[in-house]
Amino acid sequence: MSSVGKSSMKPEQPVYILNSASVVGTKEGQGPLGKLFDLVGDDDTFGGGNWEEAESTLQKEAVYLALKKAGKETTDIKCMFAGDLLGQSMATSFGISIYQIPLLGVYGACSTCGESILLGTMCISGGFARQVLCVTSSHFASAEKEFRFPLEYGNQRPLSATWTVTGSGAFVLGAEKEPGARAQITGMTVGTVTDYGVKDSFNMGACMAPAAADTIKQHFIDFNSQPSDYDKIITGDLGTVGQTILIDLLREQGYDISDRHMDCGIEIFDADTQDTHAGGSGCGCAAVTLSAYILKQLEEGHWKKVLFAPTGALLSKTSYNEGKSVPGISHALILEAIPKKK
Amino acid sequence: MSSVGKSSMKPEQPVYILNSASVVGTKEGQGPLGKLFDLVGDDDTFGGGNWEEAESTLQKEAVYLALKKAGKETTDIKCMFAGDLLGQSMATSFGISIYQIPLLGVYGACSTCGESILLGTMCISGGFARQVLCVTSSHFASAEKEFRFPLEYGNQRPLSATWTVTGSGAFVLGAEKEPGARAQITGMTVGTVTDYGVKDSFNMGACMAPAAADTIKQHFIDFNSQPSDYDKIITGDLGTVGQTILIDLLREQGYDISDRHMDCGIEIFDADTQDTHAGGSGCGCAAVTLSAYILKQLEEGHWKKVLFAPTGALLSKTSYNEGKSVPGISHALILEAIPKKK
Repeated sequence: MSSVGKSSMKPEQPVYILNSASVVGTKEGQGPLGKLFDLVGDDDTFGGGNWEEAESTLQKEAVYLALKKAGKETTDIKCMFAGDLLGQSMATSFGISIYQIPLLGVYGACSTCGESILLGTMCISGGFARQVLCVTSSHFASAEKEFRFPLEYGNQRPLSATWTVTGSGAFVLGAEKEPGARAQITGMTVGTVTDYGVKDSFNMGACMAPAAADTIKQHFIDFNSQPSDYDKIITGDLGTVGQTILIDLLREQGYDISDRHMDCGIEIFDADTQDTHAGGSGCGCAAVTLSAYILKQLEEGHWKKVLFAPTGALLSKTSYNEGKSVPGISHALILEAIPKKK
Repeated sequence: MSSVGKSSMKPEQPVYILNSASVVGTKEGQGPLGKLFDLVGDDDTFGGGNWEEAESTLQKEAVYLALKKAGKETTDIKCMFAGDLLGQSMATSFGISIYQIPLLGVYGACSTCGESILLGTMCISGGFARQVLCVTSSHFASAEKEFRFPLEYGNQRPLSATWTVTGSGAFVLGAEKEPGARAQITGMTVGTVTDYGVKDSFNMGACMAPAAADTIKQHFIDFNSQPSDYDKIITGDLGTVGQTILIDLLREQGYDISDRHMDCGIEIFDADTQDTHAGGSGCGCAAVTLSAYILKQLEEGHWKKVLFAPTGALLSKTSYNEGKSVPGISHALILEAIPKKK
């Protein structure tokens, strides 16, 4: 465990993603990654009486599946790092209390998947726990209600808008390389609030791209690395508009990531046929894509090392209505394939 | 650094609170602890155009003063652990971005002061940072707007209601016992979401007392300690109603804390003359009382060892309006006086 450069950290020994699970809604199930998710709901209410309950159920199911896949009981888990997009992280408070695992609540908007795994890695690497759980979620309907308009209003969405992913990803981290472990975490970079003054909550990609650029650049500086050291450089939910901005901003700083950038928001939907405009977004977007797709690519040897940098837009309906800008934040993790025994 | 029992952790070497600062509003300045705070505002807007800006200014000022008192620059701080009560932690996002210190956002309702210091301790003890900052805030007017009624409505408050503290506390933690260090952190217990089904957002003490009881009991079990091992057992903002419940619940479990329990919410206001009913509450309540009063008692040798357990009520206006209960959570820290050189 050590401090690396201005904003980064490195565990002395890798921390392992022992297993993980993804639970998504119907639209995500129909998308390009649909067959990879562990559970696709038949109905986006997930049996709940309102959208917040639906989102809580996503988290509850994701945690259940992640524990089961990892072969762990709740008593094997020292604590959980969890959060979501709703005011006062309500999906989390009501979703995972059933497990009675000590909870450390996290808020990083859509960067929460990165932040929770970063803190979980810190906890394990520091020797405070053998296993922890990291979980986050978002739901299209609860997010629209929280941040924009009631669905019944039927507002038009500009082409720069993203579509909040209905989904939850849960990750069991551990100190030991157990059989079946999916990947190892070997470094992390903490994001700084980055504000270019963009105020358009229907263009979250533009709000968040500067934060992603800042974190990725700082990561390269801190680890003395460059884009070619990673098979993929992956953001959470910039979408097509944000992707262009990110690539441009990093090029201005001397880093060309255009041949290896991937955005979970672009991968999860087929914008042409699914009417999702600039792509997917929400805490769940990066989390379910990590669990279902990115870790699979690492496991199967297609990629050896990636930089995973989920991105969050720090807005509330109050700050938006008061005319504030939408600052961004992005936390990055180095994820590596576990070397196969020879 | 080690895992202790079910829910607790212990840093191998103590982590130090190098310095801290408290910034409060006019009402807090007129209360029993008024003369101890570092800065009392002349006007609860703190120069902001709305209540959220006022709360952001509280955090900004608290961080400024804590850094100054600790003799640190922003570049000495590896990262901040920060959060508040507002939707999407808006006071934090806009309050501390000016410092451009990497940010790990935390949500623990009014337990945030405990959670942020717990995570900061983990970060330092794990070797990831030499110094970190932990900050939280609340503001009476922004909290009433967020959770209850607009102030202009002039609603009646039942006697079980607490008064949200306008205040922010910031803490510089460090790995080295520098001159002027205020206290040492020697253990921590992570709270679990605890829900007794109480639904009354005007009786937060009753909502949170079961969580405090659960965390304090688990702390005694994990550390094999008992109430008499601590000079004070301190909760954040239970108020008078919650205090009675906490003492009763722990007595049922075989622990009598009645002769050494203190609640920051009871200390910060004079309920008889300040019309605050059951006491103070909010993230700021425990934070400013810790900075201004508790650390001073430890420094001056009145107390040697205390258990500091801020308490959070996990509600949002959405969950409340949907008829949900108000679960609680409480995170606890062992704070000890720094032994004087002989």
